[in-house]
Amino acid sequence: MTRISFHQKLESLRERLLQMAGLAEQTLSFALDAHCRGDLSACSKVRINETMINRFEREIDQMALDLLAMEQPMAVDLRFVLAAIKINSDLERVGDMAMTIALLAEELAGSQPCEFPVDIPRMAELSMAMIRQSLQALTDRDAELATRVLAMDDAVDEMNRRAKSVLLECIAQDATAAQSAINLLFISRSLERIADHATNMAEDVIFWVRGADVRHGHSLPIQA
Amino acid sequence: MTRISFHQKLESLRERLLQMAGLAEQTLSFALDAHCRGDLSACSKVRINETMINRFEREIDQMALDLLAMEQPMAVDLRFVLAAIKINSDLERVGDMAMTIALLAEELAGSQPCEFPVDIPRMAELSMAMIRQSLQALTDRDAELATRVLAMDDAVDEMNRRAKSVLLECIAQDATAAQSAINLLFISRSLERIADHATNMAEDVIFWVRGADVRHGHSLPIQA
Repeated sequence: MTRISFHQKLESLRERLLQMAGLAEQTLSFALDAHCRGDLSACSKVRINETMINRFEREIDQMALDLLAMEQPMAVDLRFVLAAIKINSDLERVGDMAMTIALLAEELAGSQPCEFPVDIPRMAELSMAMIRQSLQALTDRDAELATRVLAMDDAVDEMNRRAKSVLLECIAQDATAAQSAINLLFISRSLERIADHATNMAEDVIFWVRGADVRHGHSLPIQA
Repeated sequence: MTRISFHQKLESLRERLLQMAGLAEQTLSFALDAHCRGDLSACSKVRINETMINRFEREIDQMALDLLAMEQPMAVDLRFVLAAIKINSDLERVGDMAMTIALLAEELAGSQPCEFPVDIPRMAELSMAMIRQSLQALTDRDAELATRVLAMDDAVDEMNRRAKSVLLECIAQDATAAQSAINLLFISRSLERIADHATNMAEDVIFWVRGADVRHGHSLPIQA
C-alpha cells in the first residue's frame, strides 16, 4: 500500500464525512420548514434523508475501520480518524433530532393553532450556525473557528431555559394550550441538544488539529 | 513492545471501561434516589460522580489512542478498541442524563408536591437493567445477551409515550400542576434516552464480538 493511496483514503473519509454533514444540515433545515412554515411535505423529506444518514454512518465507520486496520495512521492522521468516528456519531444524532422535530411538527399541525412568544426560528438559526461553523472548522482545519463555536453554546442553553419558563407561563394561563406548548418545549430541547452535538464536533476538530482535549473545560496535551 | 504488554494494555482498557460503567450506573442510581425518595443529599453525590465520569472519559480515550498509535491492533482487538471509544462516549452521556434527572429532582422538590400516575421507578428499573445487561454482555463477550437488550428498548419507548399522554391529561385537569408534570416529562424522556444509550452500547458489543454492524436494523459483515 503506497502513501498516495493512504492519503487518498484519508481524503475520501474527509469528503464522505462532509457529505454526511451536508445531509444532516439539510435534514434539520427540512424539519424546521415543517415546523416554522407548516410545510408538512418536508416531513417525508426528513424521513428519506434520515435513512440515508443511517447508511452514511455505517459507511463512514467502515472506512475509518479499514483505514485503521490497513494503514495504521499515526499522530495527526490517527487523531483525524478518531475525530471522524466521533463527528460521524454526532451527525447521526443531529439526524435523529431532526426526525424528532419533524414528528413534533406533525403533531403540532394536528392540534389547535396557538401562538407562543418563543423564538424557535432564532434558536434554530443559532444551532444551525454552530453546526455549519464546526464543519467549516473541519474543512479548514481551523481550531480558532471551532473555539468560537464552543462559546455559542451558552446562548442556546439560555434560550432553551427561557423558552421553558415562558411556555410554563402560557400553560398556567390556558391549560388547553398544554399539548402544543409541550411539543414546542421538546422542539426547543431538541435544538439545544443539536447545539450540544455541534459543540462536541467543534471539540473533536480542536483535538484533531491541536492534539488537545478541550472537553469539560480541560485542555490536556495528547501524544499519539 | 511485546504481545504480553499489548494484552495487558487491552485488559487495562477493558477494566477502566468497566469502572467507568460502574460509576455511570451508580450516578444514575443516586439521581433516582434524589427523585424517587426525595433524597436531595444524593444530588451532590451526582455532581461529584459526574466530574469523575468526565475525567474517566478523557483517560479512556487517551488509553484507546495510545493503543491504536503504539500497538496497531488488528481484527477483533481493533474492533474492541473502537467499541470502547463509543461505549465510553455513551457512558459519559448516561452521566449527563443522571445530572439532568438530579437537577429536575431538585426543581420538583422546590415546587408543590403532586402525585402523578406515572411509574418512573419501573421505567428507571428497566433502563438500569438495560445498562447492566449491556455491561454484562461486554464483560462476558456475550452477543446473545446484547441482542436481548435491543429488544427491551421498545418497552421503554412505549412507557415514555404513555407518560407523555398521562401527564398531558393531568395538566388539562389542573394547570397549577404544569411545572411538576413537565419536569416529570423530562425525567421520563431522560430515562428513554438512557435506554437509547444502553441500546448503542449493546450494538457496539455485538459489533466487537461478531464483527456485525446491527445499527438501524441492518446487519453487515465487517472485515478488519
